[in-house]
Amino acid sequence: MTRDLKNRLMEKIQGDLGKIEESLRKNLKGHLELVSEIAGHLLFGHGKRLRPLLMINSAKMCGYHEKPMPAKSIIDLAIIFEYLHAATLLHDDVIDEADMRRGKKAAHKKWDSPKVILTGDFLLARSSSIAIKTGNLKIISTIAHIAEEMSQGEIDQLNQKNNLDLSEDHYFRIINAKTAVLIEGACKCGALLANAPKEREDALFNYGHNLGMAFQMADDLLDYTADAKTLGKKPGADLREGKLTLPLIKTLERASKKDKGKIEKLILAIELSQAEFEELVSMILEYKGVEYTQEKALEYVKDAKACLEIFESSEQKELLTQLADYSIKRKV
Amino acid sequence: MTRDLKNRLMEKIQGDLGKIEESLRKNLKGHLELVSEIAGHLLFGHGKRLRPLLMINSAKMCGYHEKPMPAKSIIDLAIIFEYLHAATLLHDDVIDEADMRRGKKAAHKKWDSPKVILTGDFLLARSSSIAIKTGNLKIISTIAHIAEEMSQGEIDQLNQKNNLDLSEDHYFRIINAKTAVLIEGACKCGALLANAPKEREDALFNYGHNLGMAFQMADDLLDYTADAKTLGKKPGADLREGKLTLPLIKTLERASKKDKGKIEKLILAIELSQAEFEELVSMILEYKGVEYTQEKALEYVKDAKACLEIFESSEQKELLTQLADYSIKRKV
Repeated sequence: MTRDLKNRLMEKIQGDLGKIEESLRKNLKGHLELVSEIAGHLLFGHGKRLRPLLMINSAKMCGYHEKPMPAKSIIDLAIIFEYLHAATLLHDDVIDEADMRRGKKAAHKKWDSPKVILTGDFLLARSSSIAIKTGNLKIISTIAHIAEEMSQGEIDQLNQKNNLDLSEDHYFRIINAKTAVLIEGACKCGALLANAPKEREDALFNYGHNLGMAFQMADDLLDYTADAKTLGKKPGADLREGKLTLPLIKTLERASKKDKGKIEKLILAIELSQAEFEELVSMILEYKGVEYTQEKALEYVKDAKACLEIFESSEQKELLTQLADYSIKRKV
Repeated sequence: MTRDLKNRLMEKIQGDLGKIEESLRKNLKGHLELVSEIAGHLLFGHGKRLRPLLMINSAKMCGYHEKPMPAKSIIDLAIIFEYLHAATLLHDDVIDEADMRRGKKAAHKKWDSPKVILTGDFLLARSSSIAIKTGNLKIISTIAHIAEEMSQGEIDQLNQKNNLDLSEDHYFRIINAKTAVLIEGACKCGALLANAPKEREDALFNYGHNLGMAFQMADDLLDYTADAKTLGKKPGADLREGKLTLPLIKTLERASKKDKGKIEKLILAIELSQAEFEELVSMILEYKGVEYTQEKALEYVKDAKACLEIFESSEQKELLTQLADYSIKRKV
C-alpha cells in the first residue's frame, strides 16, 4: 500500500470516527440521565469502533451513497453495533466480576451491578429501536438474531467454565456465537443497506464471520501474551474465570500426562500467583498452543480476505483487507 | 354477568391458556438447553398469563379472526409479552436479590446470577425475533419501545431507593415505565394485529395503560397486606429493598412529625423484625395510605373501563371489563 493511500484511508477513518462519537452521544440523549452516564462511561472509554466502521465500509463498498440530506444517516445506524457490543461488555463485566475495562474501572465498580445490568438492557433495546428506523426487515431481524446468539454464546461459555475437556469444536461454536455473529452481522447489514445483490451480501457476511473468529482468537491470545498496561486490564483473566480458550485447549490436548495434571491443577486453583501464571504461559508456549492459535487465526484472516475477491478495487476494499490483517496483529 | 356467560368466558380463557403454555414451550425449543431450563423454571411457575390474554382478547375484540391455517398463530405472538415479562422478572430478582418468586425458589438461587442475567437477555432478544415475524413495523417498534421503557423504569426505581422524598408523581412515572408500558403495549399490539382503526387502537392502548397502573398499585398494596402463603413470597419485600410505593409515600406525606421520624427510621433500618413491619403497616393503615392507594387504583380501573365504551358488546369486552375489576381485587 502506498503511503498516499494509507494517508487517505486514515483520513477517511478519522472522519467517520468523529461522526460515530457524535452519534453515540446524540442517541443517548433524552433518556434517563443515569443510563446515559453509565453507558457513556464504557462507550467513551477508547473503543476501537471496529463494528460501526465495518458496517459503514461494507455499505460503501457495495455502492451505498449518502444522500445530501439523509433522513437517517448511515452513521446513526452503524452505532447499533457499538451499542450491542457495549451492552454485552457491561453484562460480561458484571458476570465475570471484572475490575477493569479499557484501562478504566469497570462500570459496575463505579456504580453497582444492578444499574449496570439494566443499562445493558437499555442498550439492547435501543439497538432494536434504531434498527427499526431503517424500516428494513432484514436488517431488523439480523439485529434480533445477533442479540439472541450472543446471549446464548455467553451462557454456553459460562456453562463450560472449568470444563477441562472442552473441545476445539465447542470453543469455535462459542466464539462464533459470542463474537463472530455480531461482526458478520455488521458487515451483512452494510450490504443490506446498500441493497447489494445476494452474492455480495453473502461475501460480506462470510468476510465478517472469518474476521470475527480471528478477532476473538487474537483476543484470547492477548490474554496470555499481552502486558497489563497495553491491555488496559490484567492478563490471565480468562484463566482466572475458568474460561478455556484455544491456546490452552490445544496445550491440554498435546501435553504429557504429567504436564496435563500440572496444568489442570493450575486451571482449577482458586488463585494463581504471578509465577504460576508464567509457568502456565511457558507450558502453553512449549506445547505450541500459542503458535497453533496464531496459525488458525491466520487461516481465518486468509479466508476473510478471499471473501473480498469478488469486489472491484476500492478504498473500502483496501481498508477491509487491512482490518483483516490488523485483527491478529493488534496489541490490544 | 350471568352464570352462563361467566362459564363461557372461563372456558374460552382455559382454551387460550392451554395454547399459550404450549407455545411458550415450543418457542424455547431448539435453543441452548440450559436457557430453556432457566427460562422454563420461571415461565412455568404458575404465571397468570395476563399479558398474552390481553393481546389475544384485544385483537379479537377488534374483529381479528384466525384463518383456518394461520402462518403465524396469534398465540405465538401473544407469548412475546410473557417472554418480556419473564425477562424483567429474571433480571429484577437478581437485582433485588429476591429469594422466592411465585412460590418457588427464584431462578438465580437455583442456578446462579450470571446465567439468569443472560437468560433474561435471551428472552428479550427472542421477543424481538417473534415480533419481527409479523412483518408489522408498528408491532415491532412497540416491542422495542416497551423494552427501552422498562429498563429505564427499573433503573429509575433503583436510583430512587431509600429516597424518602419520592413524590407521588415520580412514583407514577416509575410504575408507568416498569409495568403499564408492557400492558398497554400488549393491548395496542392486539389492535394493530387486527388492523383496527386508530381510534380503537388508542382506546385499547389507554385501557391497557390504566389497567397497568391499577395492576401495579394493587401489587404494591399486596406487599403490605397479603400473607406469605398466598403471595408466594414474603411480604414487605419493597420495604426491605428500600422501594417506596404509594401507600408509604402517602403515609409519609400525611404523618405527624413524630410519626414521620419513626417511619423513616424503619425504612432505613438494615433489617426489620416482624413486629416492626407490623407497626409500620398499622401506621400506613392509620394514615390511610392503603385506602388512598385503593381509591387511586379504583379511579384507574374506572378509566380503563371507560376506554372500552366505544366497543360494541362482545365476550371479549366482557372479559376485559372483568380483568379491570380483577386487577385490584386479586389476592396474588
